[in-house]
Amino acid sequence: MDLAAKLADVVGAGYVLTGADASEDYSHDETLSAEPVRPAYVVRPATAAEVADLLRVATEANTPVTARGSGSGLSGAAVPRENGILVSFDRMTKVIEIDTDNHVAVVQPGVTLQELEDRTAEVGLVYPVYPGELSASLGGTAATNAGGMRAVKYGVTRHHVLGLEAVLPTGEVLRTGGKFVKASTGYDLTQLIVGSEGTLALITEATLKLQPRVAHQATVLAPFADLDTVVRAVPKVVGSGLAPLILEYIDAMTMGAITYTADLQLGIPDQVRDTSQAYLVVMLENRASDRLDADVEAVGTLLSELGAVDAYVLPGPSARKLIEAREKAFFTAKGAGADEIIDTVLPRASLPQFMAKVTEIAQANESFVVGCGHAGDGNVHLAVFQKDTEKRTATLRGLFEAGMALGGAISGEHGIGHAKKHYFLDLEDPAKIDLMRRIKQAFDPAGILNPGVLFD
Amino acid sequence: MDLAAKLADVVGAGYVLTGADASEDYSHDETLSAEPVRPAYVVRPATAAEVADLLRVATEANTPVTARGSGSGLSGAAVPRENGILVSFDRMTKVIEIDTDNHVAVVQPGVTLQELEDRTAEVGLVYPVYPGELSASLGGTAATNAGGMRAVKYGVTRHHVLGLEAVLPTGEVLRTGGKFVKASTGYDLTQLIVGSEGTLALITEATLKLQPRVAHQATVLAPFADLDTVVRAVPKVVGSGLAPLILEYIDAMTMGAITYTADLQLGIPDQVRDTSQAYLVVMLENRASDRLDADVEAVGTLLSELGAVDAYVLPGPSARKLIEAREKAFFTAKGAGADEIIDTVLPRASLPQFMAKVTEIAQANESFVVGCGHAGDGNVHLAVFQKDTEKRTATLRGLFEAGMALGGAISGEHGIGHAKKHYFLDLEDPAKIDLMRRIKQAFDPAGILNPGVLFD
Repeated sequence: MDLAAKLADVVGAGYVLTGADASEDYSHDETLSAEPVRPAYVVRPATAAEVADLLRVATEANTPVTARGSGSGLSGAAVPRENGILVSFDRMTKVIEIDTDNHVAVVQPGVTLQELEDRTAEVGLVYPVYPGELSASLGGTAATNAGGMRAVKYGVTRHHVLGLEAVLPTGEVLRTGGKFVKASTGYDLTQLIVGSEGTLALITEATLKLQPRVAHQATVLAPFADLDTVVRAVPKVVGSGLAPLILEYIDAMTMGAITYTADLQLGIPDQVRDTSQAYLVVMLENRASDRLDADVEAVGTLLSELGAVDAYVLPGPSARKLIEAREKAFFTAKGAGADEIIDTVLPRASLPQFMAKVTEIAQANESFVVGCGHAGDGNVHLAVFQKDTEKRTATLRGLFEAGMALGGAISGEHGIGHAKKHYFLDLEDPAKIDLMRRIKQAFDPAGILNPGVLFD
Repeated sequence: MDLAAKLADVVGAGYVLTGADASEDYSHDETLSAEPVRPAYVVRPATAAEVADLLRVATEANTPVTARGSGSGLSGAAVPRENGILVSFDRMTKVIEIDTDNHVAVVQPGVTLQELEDRTAEVGLVYPVYPGELSASLGGTAATNAGGMRAVKYGVTRHHVLGLEAVLPTGEVLRTGGKFVKASTGYDLTQLIVGSEGTLALITEATLKLQPRVAHQATVLAPFADLDTVVRAVPKVVGSGLAPLILEYIDAMTMGAITYTADLQLGIPDQVRDTSQAYLVVMLENRASDRLDADVEAVGTLLSELGAVDAYVLPGPSARKLIEAREKAFFTAKGAGADEIIDTVLPRASLPQFMAKVTEIAQANESFVVGCGHAGDGNVHLAVFQKDTEKRTATLRGLFEAGMALGGAISGEHGIGHAKKHYFLDLEDPAKIDLMRRIKQAFDPAGILNPGVLFD
C-alpha cells in the first residue's frame, strides 16, 4: 500500500490531497522571502486520534511532517517539504469550551483568534493576545509563541497557554498542564512545546487563560520631533504604573504609509506633522470610565514632560482605525515592496542605542529600513528594502548582531522557521544549539517533524 | 588525587567541607517526612566558572550533585546523596543589578527574597512573587517554581524569570533569555530549567521581572458559615475584575491555630466566630487611595452577596499580622504535629468538589486534614495528621488522585522532589514520564544532577 492510501485509511480518502488537488495556499505562509513549496500530501485530520495515527504512518515511512494553522506565519515554519506531508488543521476548528468560572478557553488548533474574540466577548472575557492578524489560528500562534501589541500589559501567547493536548511523532497523545496557572510537577512540557514551531509535537488542543474584558479604552497619540526622544520616553511610561494596554512607536515614514493606506485623517496640524519624525501610541483601559479619564490626563501630562510635541486623545473611530492600520503595517510594507520584515527584541531601555545602530547598518549596506514596534516590550518591527540578496543578508545579519550585542534575541514573536535559521545557527551559542538538538531528539528521534526548521 | 582535593582545587580548600565540618543544616530542607542525609562533600563556589569546574570534576568522578539555596524547600529536592556533593550557593549572594528602566533585577542564586524585597523597595519596584518564606533563595525558588499568595494577581516564579545563567553537568555555561518579556528564538530553555528541581542544570544567575510597587493596600476578612460557600465564592471574586492581590481561604481550625500562635485578635464578635467554619481573605491594591477605598467597598458588597456572614476591613497592623500568620501556617502545622503538608492544585471552580473529597478521604483513612490555600489559583495547602505510614500514604495518594481526577496536578508550587516522587511516578501518564526522562538525558547524560529527585 502506498503512503497516500495509508493516510487515506487514517483520515478518509476525501481528506488526503495530492498534486494539483491541493490548493496553492498550502505551499506558503506570509514570509516575504520564502519560496513556496508544494507538499507531496496534504492531510486534513479531524481528531487527535487521527493525528496520532497519521504520525505513526509518517514515522514508519520516514516522511517529513509540517503542521499548518491559517498560514499567516512570518518565518516559513508552515512551509512544507516537497516530499512531505502537510497536516492542515482546517477541520479542527471547534471551541470546545469557554469556562467562565475558571477563566479558560479550550480550543482545537484550527480555531481563529477572531472566533475566540467573538466567543469570549459574549461572556465578558477576553483572550488578550493580539498579534494583529485575526485570521491566525490558535494552534499556529501557540507554535510560534505569537505576541502583538497588548503584550506590554498581558504578555504573549506563552503566558496564556495553560495546557496542551499534543501528539508526539511516535503517536503518543500527551496532555500537559491544565485549567490552572501554576504547577510544580515535573518539567513544563507546555512551555517547551509553545514556540517550538512544529518541531517537537503537533498541538491538537489548547487550554488558554482568559481575562475579564475591561469595559473602557482610550488612545493617546503623541508626535515627537525625533525617534530618539520617543524611545527614551518608553521606560518612563511603563514605569508610571499606568499599565498601558498598548505602547507602540511608529516612525514618520511608516505612519505616513499606514494612514495613507487606511485613508485615515488623524487631525494633526500640518506644522506638527511636518516636524515630527516619530509617534508614540498609548492605549489605556479601565473598568471605570472616570478612572480612565483621569489616567488619560495623567498620560498626556507625562508625555509632554517626556518631550512630546503634543498629545491627542483620538476619538473612538479614529483610534480603532489607527490600531487596525498599525496591525496591517506588515501588509503596507509588503505592498510598498519591502524585501524582508524582522522583529528583533531587546531590553526596552536599549532601544535608543539600537535605533542608532539601525541607521548605521542601513547606510553601510545601502538598504532602506523603516518601522514601528512594540516599544514597551523592546520588540522592533523593521521593514528592510534591499533587492540585492547579498546586501540584504548583510543588513539582516548586522541588525541581529546589533540586537544580540545589546542583550536581545533575533525574534520576539515571529519565530525562526526557515527564514532566519541561518542567522540563528550562526549567531547563537553553539552549546545552546546542541542542547536544543538533543531536546528535539528526545521528542522526535526519527526527525520527521518539520526538518529544516530551526536546525539544518 | 582524591575527590576532596580536586574540589578544593576548584573552590579553595576552605570551601570544601567534609564529615563533621559540614553543618547539620546541609543535610535537610523543611520537608516534614524527609530523612536528613549528610553529604560526602559540601562545596561552596563563588562564581559560575567554579560551578562549571566542579561539575566537570563531579561528572568525571560520576558523583551525584545536589544544589542548595536556603534549604527552605518542602519537597526534599535539596536533600543531598550520602555519597554526593552538596553545592551550597551561600557565597553567591550578590544583587548584580536593579535595572529601573527595564524593570529587571539580576541576581546570584543565593540572594534571598528579603534582600530583593529591600533592594527593590528603595526604587519603587517590587518582585511580586511571595512564597511566604522570605529567607528563601532566588535560585531555590526558581528551581522549584515557587508560588505564594500573590500569584492570583502576578503569577508565580516561572512568570518572572526572564533569563538564566545555568551550568550543564558537562561544565558548559549557558545564558538563556534576557531583559525582555518575550522571544521566539528556539526552545525556551529558561522555562524548562525553572521548576526542574536541580535535575537539569545549576542556576548561577537569574534575570527577574519586576513590577512598579503599588502604593496602597487594604485587606478584607470575610467569615463564612461553611467552607463550601467560601470556595464557591472564589470564581466570582476573581471574575469581578477587582484583581485581588491575595485571595486566600482559611478553614476555622487553621485560623484558630495561626491567630493563636501569632497572638492576634481580629475583633470578630464571638457569635460570628463560633458559627464560621471558614474565612476568605481578600487583599486589594491600587496606585490611588480613593480608588482603593471604592474597590474595598465593592468587594465588601460582593462578599455579602456571595454569602459572607460579614466583611471586616482589617486595620493595617492586624492585616499585616494576619498575612504573616498565614505565611507561617506551615510552621504552625508543623508545631501542631502535622505529619505531611501537600499543595495540590486544581481548577479553582473545582474546589467545592475537591474539598468534599478531602473530607471523605480523611475519614476513610482515619486521618485528620485541615488547611488553607491560594483559593484564587485553586492551590490547596493541606496539613495531614496521621502517624501511621501506611494510612498516611493512602491518604496522600487519595488526595492526589482526587485532585488529578478533577484536572489538577500533584503540586502547585512546592515541587515533587523525593517526597512526592512515588506518587508522581505512579499517577502520571507513563508516556510523559518517559519523555521527561529523555529530556533529563539531553541535559545530563551521566545522570549526576540530583538523582532520585523526580525520577528513581
